[in-house]
Amino acid sequence: MDQKTLVERREVLDNLLKRRFFIAPSFEIYGGVAGLFDYGPPGCALKSEIESFWRRHFVLAEDMLEISATCLTPYNPLKASGHVDRFTDLMITDTKTNDCYRADKVLEEYVENRLKEKSSNPPKSEHEKNDLESLGIKAGSLGVDEIKEVFNRYQIKPPSGGEWSEPYPFNLMFRTKIGPKEVEGRNDNVGFMRPETAQGIFVNFKRLFDYNGKKLPFSVAQIGLGFRNEIAPRNGLLRVREFQMAEIEHFVHPDRKNHHKFNDVASKCLPLYSRRTQLKNGEIERNITLREAVHGEEKIIDNETLAYFLSRTYDFLISIGINPLGIRFRQHLSTEMAHYASDCWDAEVLTSYGWIECAGHADRSCYDLLQHSKSAKTDLLASEKYDEPQFKNVLVLTLNKPLIGKTFKQEASLVTEALQEFANKGDISFQEKLNQYNKAILNYKSCENKKEYQWEISSEMAKFEFQTKKVTEEQFTPAVIEPSFGIGRILYCLLEHSFKIREDLSEVQDKDIGNKINNSADNEMQRSYLSLPALIAPIKCSILPISSNIIFDNLISLLHKNLINHGISCKVDTSSASIGRRYARTDEIGIPFGITIDFQSLKDDTVTLRERDSMKQVRIPSAEVASLISKMITQQINWNNVLDNYPLFTQQSSE
Amino acid sequence: MDQKTLVERREVLDNLLKRRFFIAPSFEIYGGVAGLFDYGPPGCALKSEIESFWRRHFVLAEDMLEISATCLTPYNPLKASGHVDRFTDLMITDTKTNDCYRADKVLEEYVENRLKEKSSNPPKSEHEKNDLESLGIKAGSLGVDEIKEVFNRYQIKPPSGGEWSEPYPFNLMFRTKIGPKEVEGRNDNVGFMRPETAQGIFVNFKRLFDYNGKKLPFSVAQIGLGFRNEIAPRNGLLRVREFQMAEIEHFVHPDRKNHHKFNDVASKCLPLYSRRTQLKNGEIERNITLREAVHGEEKIIDNETLAYFLSRTYDFLISIGINPLGIRFRQHLSTEMAHYASDCWDAEVLTSYGWIECAGHADRSCYDLLQHSKSAKTDLLASEKYDEPQFKNVLVLTLNKPLIGKTFKQEASLVTEALQEFANKGDISFQEKLNQYNKAILNYKSCENKKEYQWEISSEMAKFEFQTKKVTEEQFTPAVIEPSFGIGRILYCLLEHSFKIREDLSEVQDKDIGNKINNSADNEMQRSYLSLPALIAPIKCSILPISSNIIFDNLISLLHKNLINHGISCKVDTSSASIGRRYARTDEIGIPFGITIDFQSLKDDTVTLRERDSMKQVRIPSAEVASLISKMITQQINWNNVLDNYPLFTQQSSE
Repeated sequence: MDQKTLVERREVLDNLLKRRFFIAPSFEIYGGVAGLFDYGPPGCALKSEIESFWRRHFVLAEDMLEISATCLTPYNPLKASGHVDRFTDLMITDTKTNDCYRADKVLEEYVENRLKEKSSNPPKSEHEKNDLESLGIKAGSLGVDEIKEVFNRYQIKPPSGGEWSEPYPFNLMFRTKIGPKEVEGRNDNVGFMRPETAQGIFVNFKRLFDYNGKKLPFSVAQIGLGFRNEIAPRNGLLRVREFQMAEIEHFVHPDRKNHHKFNDVASKCLPLYSRRTQLKNGEIERNITLREAVHGEEKIIDNETLAYFLSRTYDFLISIGINPLGIRFRQHLSTEMAHYASDCWDAEVLTSYGWIECAGHADRSCYDLLQHSKSAKTDLLASEKYDEPQFKNVLVLTLNKPLIGKTFKQEASLVTEALQEFANKGDISFQEKLNQYNKAILNYKSCENKKEYQWEISSEMAKFEFQTKKVTEEQFTPAVIEPSFGIGRILYCLLEHSFKIREDLSEVQDKDIGNKINNSADNEMQRSYLSLPALIAPIKCSILPISSNIIFDNLISLLHKNLINHGISCKVDTSSASIGRRYARTDEIGIPFGITIDFQSLKDDTVTLRERDSMKQVRIPSAEVASLISKMITQQINWNNVLDNYPLFTQQSSE
Repeated sequence: MDQKTLVERREVLDNLLKRRFFIAPSFEIYGGVAGLFDYGPPGCALKSEIESFWRRHFVLAEDMLEISATCLTPYNPLKASGHVDRFTDLMITDTKTNDCYRADKVLEEYVENRLKEKSSNPPKSEHEKNDLESLGIKAGSLGVDEIKEVFNRYQIKPPSGGEWSEPYPFNLMFRTKIGPKEVEGRNDNVGFMRPETAQGIFVNFKRLFDYNGKKLPFSVAQIGLGFRNEIAPRNGLLRVREFQMAEIEHFVHPDRKNHHKFNDVASKCLPLYSRRTQLKNGEIERNITLREAVHGEEKIIDNETLAYFLSRTYDFLISIGINPLGIRFRQHLSTEMAHYASDCWDAEVLTSYGWIECAGHADRSCYDLLQHSKSAKTDLLASEKYDEPQFKNVLVLTLNKPLIGKTFKQEASLVTEALQEFANKGDISFQEKLNQYNKAILNYKSCENKKEYQWEISSEMAKFEFQTKKVTEEQFTPAVIEPSFGIGRILYCLLEHSFKIREDLSEVQDKDIGNKINNSADNEMQRSYLSLPALIAPIKCSILPISSNIIFDNLISLLHKNLINHGISCKVDTSSASIGRRYARTDEIGIPFGITIDFQSLKDDTVTLRERDSMKQVRIPSAEVASLISKMITQQINWNNVLDNYPLFTQQSSE
């Protein structure tokens, strides 16, 4: 499992993926569109198998609620979530060619060029070298002014010989209009294609909480499309403009993030790439149990729920065929995380492009529900009954509303809001000020319009008092822990990990194709294969008559029907190519099992069953083959069990 | 099966669907967006079950190729397909309120009001009555000028008392920009959200044909989202702005639309609502075999393939639970069809809103492939080898390219294109003109820029000659037959058809809830249920302990695990509500099977299994229950088989 091998093989793999139509650029006959890809038959089936296993592994096994919200999203929810203002990349334009670039990528490339061995323009001093290194790391987090200053200082210019424009934020959401009505200067009919599926879950929190019988914790899942208008898409399926996501929002009490199944996974060790090792030696730690990681002194992972999901993700990735040695969980550095997040771990997979984030696991705290609650002016609260009623000291605010109204007029509701915040927080400090001079200055910054206010409040207007109240339930905004998967990225990583090149060529070098193997294109095609687990292989089985003689037709259609009735997808290949060549074709698209019908089959109703990775075959009654394959797909038995129970078959006879 | 009952029940059903979160308006806490709906947990699971059965019924059983193309679509392909120019509705605006309406809907409403019994403004003459009736029928097909004339003639005004604007076409596609680059006045970065999934298949024809081993016929399927910016969305899930579609494009030789499995369905009779009966007596014909319909004298259905797909669609709808008496196949009148279509049948389902189109079956002929081929300047052809080489008289065009280039300069390629068209058609007429005067006028209208050209061509420039050529294969543009399904509409129709109201209330009137039944809200909830087939029910099974006593916990989690391992979704309800009440809750969301754990279970490891529609229960060893349910879901056995093999259980004991 090393990147070098993956890089060496990438071109051959990419050819295979295009030639066998796993994926292809969208609208290719029109010249294509950067960042858009179509899944052809085997790619589409693989994607659908991955999704369907994801559903079994997460939704079904973990009792999650799955929903399906729309991609079209109006302005307000995305304003509240912060996407309208902050879902941006800094862009610069080459003023000569009008081409657009991401400022951070241009800077990273500049740094790479300066620092590489035999650079034509190496750093002029140790100080400059350090500066460049540091800029390379933090390029993505620089603001407009910082980027400007750096571009100026290093005199970075576009290759065209022109000038860079000023950097400016480019919003990555696809914008559209919903409905026919145009309202000048207002956002009423502005809509976006959702940048993530998560918001569709948050805005439905109330109904979901009700559906779950008003009990916490619970998880809501969604599989669906996300959209991101990348400035410069690249690396094939790894950075695209339209992508399938599978997201989970786990709602939980903010102070009780334990998980009832944590003990089932507590003694497992995952490949952790925590903050401390990233900053120290860069090693992946493989010998820390999750119990230690969560409850040990260092508290490497913030809570049980997060750790439980990391473990489930690890199992998921391995089950579909990702090499365990090519997985690590990278913790976000505190500078990387959003201000509200408390911990964040990415499942990264090693590919020819380096370590690629395939699934994020973020503790988003109460941020999203609070934002929507404020913006939509609705409570998004959960409540838990206390075992016994409790008596609590509560800060109660009594207002003289007529006086406030008369004094502050249009701003009265803002004043009330500002005062209520003290009460909500149990903060008595403003009352103390009032006590002192019978009046006090109230400063307030509105969340809505970002304006700052200053008012003089008198003791007649407001009074804060602690009162003892009997409380039977606690109301709170739930915290959210979010595992979020990029299906396309996972699919691509899986293809890189399962791409193998066969050393043993005896099977294809049978007499009837003989010398053809010397042709190098043939050679490549016949040697490479996809070692995808039967669980998620796009097509489960092939049916290959030993020759294209029509006497096999009856048996073929019987077998085909039987397999379909078992829900097993299969591909019949009656072409006249040699059996070895046809095996190679099916191996190439990852079909795990092949049924061969030969002349013996016509005599005793047996067929041979071949397994892709071992290339071994057994002879088996044709009536048993469908249920046997079905059991291997659902992992009730494996190929070794089959080898134990049926006679090995060694020589395909084509007479 | 009558519309009146469906109408009466609609409000209760709609309440159920919202209360149990099958569907809800998207972004409800922000006031919602017309035409957008979210699927909550049971709705999402139902949708996913319908899709997954669709895949088995069509893709798997019919050996189709499934692909997944992008929703984002650039300008050119949709220009070629005609959507940029013709995917429009005529809109009018109330100039006083600025509200937008569909002109045809306003006209239909006006006609309805004039013609209804006790109208305040009845038709003034028999002539006017006939005119209004005819306008009501053809409202949707009127052009701008016709609509204007009718609105003028009848002085139709908006209810606000203002004036209507001129009618104007409103394009129903959601428009956006792909990528950051802005090019003034060009369509380079204009994109749309696809209005149908079909185009993603057509543009991939070449790769798909190759994938299929260059053999015809073959079918390509796609399940995915479509978008339509409706002017005035209405009727819940029946007319929305974002919807899941499942489309099939069947590519076939234009002259050979027979189907190899037609004989399997030829003796079936479908409910046909053909052109002839629509125009005659409006009756649905139920006694014509498909053989008669296709090969009979009247040729009611154009070809075998179309008929075969109608039959498959019928089976699909019935399998998922649509009432056969509420299905008809309506043939498009010749005035309804696109000019290129040769035949078109909609599967319509009877709902409280009337007959609703759920699946279209259109013979699109070669139109789409031809359009893309022209527009992308690429061949989208299939070829078939003749059994024996044939000798054909072919019109060959010989061009004097230098002379044409010199004479027509930039227009030279257009001239070549125009001349080639004669050769392609085998049309010798232009050569005849040349023969006469040694020159001739060539008129041409470009498909691209719609400009008309006129050139003088001399005999030195071009020569058409018939030549005998040996042809080994025929090259042709395949025709396309398209079955296209609206998943959301089918789902809604299914809910209306499976919504039942229980007459027998003995089960819920057990002693422990006694009088509560008198409360009308309770009453409604406990009586109504969804009779969804186990095959596609959103949740397959419930687990209900007879009381919330923790001694049942072990058995619950064992059963749960066992069901999950069999891939059976289940819902545990340990709430303290009576068992009758909990049955009612599960019936309401269509859960077909309920496992009850009682005190007997703790003694002998048996449970009871209840079936929703019959409300009957059997007693059964708990180890057998999962595989039994699994067999009923996959239709290997049915509930009657279970009743035959296990003792009936009559009295739930809660002691």
